[in-house]
Amino acid sequence: MRFLSETAVDGVSERLLALGDIPGVLWTPSDATGARPLVLMGHGGGRHKLDPDIAEPARRLVRECGFAVVAVDVPGHGGRPVDERYDRIATENQVRVAAGAEPAPLMARFQALVAEQTVPEWRAVLDAVQRLDHVGAGPVGYWGISLGCGLGVPFVAAEPRVRAAVLGHGGGYASGEAAGRIGVPVRFLVQWDDERVPRDASLGLFDALGSVDKSLHANPGGHGEVPAVEWDDTVRFFDRHLTTV
Amino acid sequence: MRFLSETAVDGVSERLLALGDIPGVLWTPSDATGARPLVLMGHGGGRHKLDPDIAEPARRLVRECGFAVVAVDVPGHGGRPVDERYDRIATENQVRVAAGAEPAPLMARFQALVAEQTVPEWRAVLDAVQRLDHVGAGPVGYWGISLGCGLGVPFVAAEPRVRAAVLGHGGGYASGEAAGRIGVPVRFLVQWDDERVPRDASLGLFDALGSVDKSLHANPGGHGEVPAVEWDDTVRFFDRHLTTV
Repeated sequence: MRFLSETAVDGVSERLLALGDIPGVLWTPSDATGARPLVLMGHGGGRHKLDPDIAEPARRLVRECGFAVVAVDVPGHGGRPVDERYDRIATENQVRVAAGAEPAPLMARFQALVAEQTVPEWRAVLDAVQRLDHVGAGPVGYWGISLGCGLGVPFVAAEPRVRAAVLGHGGGYASGEAAGRIGVPVRFLVQWDDERVPRDASLGLFDALGSVDKSLHANPGGHGEVPAVEWDDTVRFFDRHLTTV
Repeated sequence: MRFLSETAVDGVSERLLALGDIPGVLWTPSDATGARPLVLMGHGGGRHKLDPDIAEPARRLVRECGFAVVAVDVPGHGGRPVDERYDRIATENQVRVAAGAEPAPLMARFQALVAEQTVPEWRAVLDAVQRLDHVGAGPVGYWGISLGCGLGVPFVAAEPRVRAAVLGHGGGYASGEAAGRIGVPVRFLVQWDDERVPRDASLGLFDALGSVDKSLHANPGGHGEVPAVEWDDTVRFFDRHLTTV
């Protein structure tokens, strides 16, 4: 892992990095020494690692909880090249939707395919970042909605270092089996008027989660809109589950 | 309104009272002077005004937010005499359920009938309590789940002093029309494995709420179980909506 740049604002260090050819960003307290909880955040479709919906809560988790936060670009997103295979499938899916197919199940199957690549990538990111002295082998959290949920469910199911996760804005078409293997506390976000994920599919994914400690928060509004109160709640959720040893 | 007794523990004054023949309880900070937010709490079926699910959060709202909290016994509950008319209807409903009828819609219609009595009773309680110097005409909140939701929906719809409400563990069979007239911020609690209220009926009542600012929190578990994290959230919810002028 190579660091490419560092800026620090209001006590938060933001370092761009590359793990092999995967571009990423690591946020930590500027004065951090020693191990601390680490949250990996997965961005939404068409977004990237420095999207405001990633960077702003990341800085809050650093400032308010003293955590480290890491995000990397998903294949075909942000600083990564176009992936011809994924691009071809996406184009085929657009054709199917134009011909009348339901978009949500197609999108979910596509995300499950991409997750076969991102799950090992993200595990390697944890390995590399946790080797840093000022991050260390502390408890890990995962945050991801929409695409970040489709990729996050198989990641959280596969990665025993993850102790708590915020997921949502996604359905259980392709990830129900993986969801059943998740046992850690989950906060699951639903947009009540989600125009992309049918409500039953959202509720079905929440149902499928194996966790005893899971809680669904539904708010009015369309796909991808997270009300401010849920960001406050996310910070408290990770603080509660990752700070206590 | 007459006060019957007063005790004070840990800075919280608890005064039993009677408004006509309605027994109630008022919690305030022991040293309270001047106007403050007031929360009216509606207890569950078969419970009463001093049930721990009422008294414990009431004391927290007093201690942590400086609010006043009032609760009164619902007709036929706690210190109130058996009501022959309600008793007869309840018995008839038991017979119908034994004969195979769905219990939830019957219960909801019964609660809508009782609400015709409790809405004016609770408005009179607000009138009386807000006349006290150390309560005054501050913003009002309402908290009630299960029976407290069935009676609370028409109350919140009818009472313009209520600025925010926590409701839940109830369905929209009989109260959908009243729910549509509610416009204040609502936190709506759902027990995901509620054995008394079908999930669709719960989600339907949340749907029917007219409020722009409404949020559904669902947690695993049976009817009437509120996870500790939701009590924390309730305190923050009322603090946010009633403390800011």
